[in-house]
Amino acid sequence: MASKRQIQVGNLTIGGGAPLVIQSMCNTKTQDTDATVAQIRELERAGCQLARVAVPDLEAAQAIRTIRRQVTIPLCADIHFDYRLALEAVKNGVEKVRINPGNIGEKAKVKQVADACKAAGVPIRVGVNGGSVDKDLRERYGVTPEALVISAQRNLEQLEDCGFFDSCVSLKLSNVFGTIQAYRLMAQRCEYPLHIGVTEAGGQKMGTLRSAAAFGALLCDGIGDTLRVSLTAPPIEEVFAAKDILKALDLHQQGARIVSCPTCGRTQVDLIALAEQVERRLQALQSRITVAVMGCVVNGPGEGREADVGICGGKGEGLIMRKGQMVDKVPEDQLVGRLMEEIAEMTGERI
Amino acid sequence: MASKRQIQVGNLTIGGGAPLVIQSMCNTKTQDTDATVAQIRELERAGCQLARVAVPDLEAAQAIRTIRRQVTIPLCADIHFDYRLALEAVKNGVEKVRINPGNIGEKAKVKQVADACKAAGVPIRVGVNGGSVDKDLRERYGVTPEALVISAQRNLEQLEDCGFFDSCVSLKLSNVFGTIQAYRLMAQRCEYPLHIGVTEAGGQKMGTLRSAAAFGALLCDGIGDTLRVSLTAPPIEEVFAAKDILKALDLHQQGARIVSCPTCGRTQVDLIALAEQVERRLQALQSRITVAVMGCVVNGPGEGREADVGICGGKGEGLIMRKGQMVDKVPEDQLVGRLMEEIAEMTGERI
Repeated sequence: MASKRQIQVGNLTIGGGAPLVIQSMCNTKTQDTDATVAQIRELERAGCQLARVAVPDLEAAQAIRTIRRQVTIPLCADIHFDYRLALEAVKNGVEKVRINPGNIGEKAKVKQVADACKAAGVPIRVGVNGGSVDKDLRERYGVTPEALVISAQRNLEQLEDCGFFDSCVSLKLSNVFGTIQAYRLMAQRCEYPLHIGVTEAGGQKMGTLRSAAAFGALLCDGIGDTLRVSLTAPPIEEVFAAKDILKALDLHQQGARIVSCPTCGRTQVDLIALAEQVERRLQALQSRITVAVMGCVVNGPGEGREADVGICGGKGEGLIMRKGQMVDKVPEDQLVGRLMEEIAEMTGERI
Repeated sequence: MASKRQIQVGNLTIGGGAPLVIQSMCNTKTQDTDATVAQIRELERAGCQLARVAVPDLEAAQAIRTIRRQVTIPLCADIHFDYRLALEAVKNGVEKVRINPGNIGEKAKVKQVADACKAAGVPIRVGVNGGSVDKDLRERYGVTPEALVISAQRNLEQLEDCGFFDSCVSLKLSNVFGTIQAYRLMAQRCEYPLHIGVTEAGGQKMGTLRSAAAFGALLCDGIGDTLRVSLTAPPIEEVFAAKDILKALDLHQQGARIVSCPTCGRTQVDLIALAEQVERRLQALQSRITVAVMGCVVNGPGEGREADVGICGGKGEGLIMRKGQMVDKVPEDQLVGRLMEEIAEMTGERI
């Protein structure tokens, strides 16, 4: 149920079943090109694939040219009311524009933006938030999923009326359930790629949890083509949080996936310490592998069966398992070391 | 879509639209009654409403009597194969038993457990995990949502055959999407209350994210009556994580809900510091109130409209908003203090 349409943002494909794209947004002044370039490079190293920059004025729009030359990942210009800034950003090489036609005003201006984007192969994101729902819809529906979706549809239609179909859509509320419902509705009503996220998600902890909850619900049903974890925190934390959430959903393509059982009265090894050690030692692993860290012989072997490899703690000693089969039994203090040997052998990586 | 049936666990009502119940499980040796009592009291103070204890042997089952006298919240006995331990736990005053009839063996033994629970008014949780799916189902379906659900249905039918209907069900996989699908399926097929959770969820960070993702999807559709965040971490962390997730979903009934926008190039105040300060100062607030911490005048007033109260940063100064209306304008360094005054006045609480 990924979007049926696909857009091309620089060298990135979004939608139509392409892998999920992680985005973030710079919090530097865009016209401070040194700071912005440094931040985008940092985001890119962390795994960000598309960076948005604020374009509140002409200087910021023109700064895009300088920034563009110095970074690799595509850029999205965030524009609010002034269509001339969109034109300027496109002229300066931006790969994507976020602007709501409803905010631009006259049809002729919308047409100018749509034509410029079309000529340059630049997609437009229509982004409706709880705070930017059209007044008549807000009065009729309140700030509800339905209001957001109709508001987005109106914006998309304005672009379609200009012959522009290279759009993607976001619909963000600050509450998780409303956000989920809005995207579910939109996925039924349009074929455009969906940029998912929760707005005003809050600080690092709450924002990450709100995003995890919304993404879990949406991505489980295949809804969502690109995402941002909006946090009131440095942008690089948004990228780390996005990667963590995708790992939690088994959608991140690289590295070890560690499953470990909760501690309980049956556990006879220091499971928390064991799990932490294993997580730390496998942090840099590239191969996709599932590793089970189990505390007892009651659930361990059964629940560890689906893992590629794992340990299962006993009394002062533990088992090394591969695909549910015991391959070795060693004293507790050798468990982690022995597990690492096994993983090194399986993956061919040095650990 | 909450369960249609309701169960009574001591003084707690689970299912049928009753408020969600937060659970955790002790990791003490149950027979070490002092340690177990201390841990249950700690869990209770943190907000845990039902505590599970491991019952691997007769001594543990008998320890329940001593523990029961010293704690307030109801207890659930975790039993694996031996039906006599279930009988003993019930005799010693436990309020709930987790046991899978499929593990007990002979029908006469299942009947004894069902009869004892019925006589004592003790509900049974049937808990199927990825690792405990019946062998024939595993071979036919793999460890899939379908296999989990059929496995649970078989267990429930064994109890129903004994005239026992006072059950609840859990279906846990270590992957989030499979867990969501299993509960969705089960919610269509049965009327029993559902205990939701992800098993082997992992360490604190990953486990919390996996649980948040699964709970977001399930609770959005009204699926789930009680929950545990399983973590390879001290049990109290499970309770904190559960409360955080419910807060993120706006399902926790108390305290301030803070929404704050991500930082961007438009922000002219130190938004991260502001949001952290507000969060810290409101940590102990009891009243249910939504507080917006917004960074700029472009989105701030609109997106903060739904909040009860909020601040909206400008250049060196900021606005105090109530329900989207500006009520004051103060210098940046007085913003938080002024906001607290406003909240104190609205809630009648001292901050």
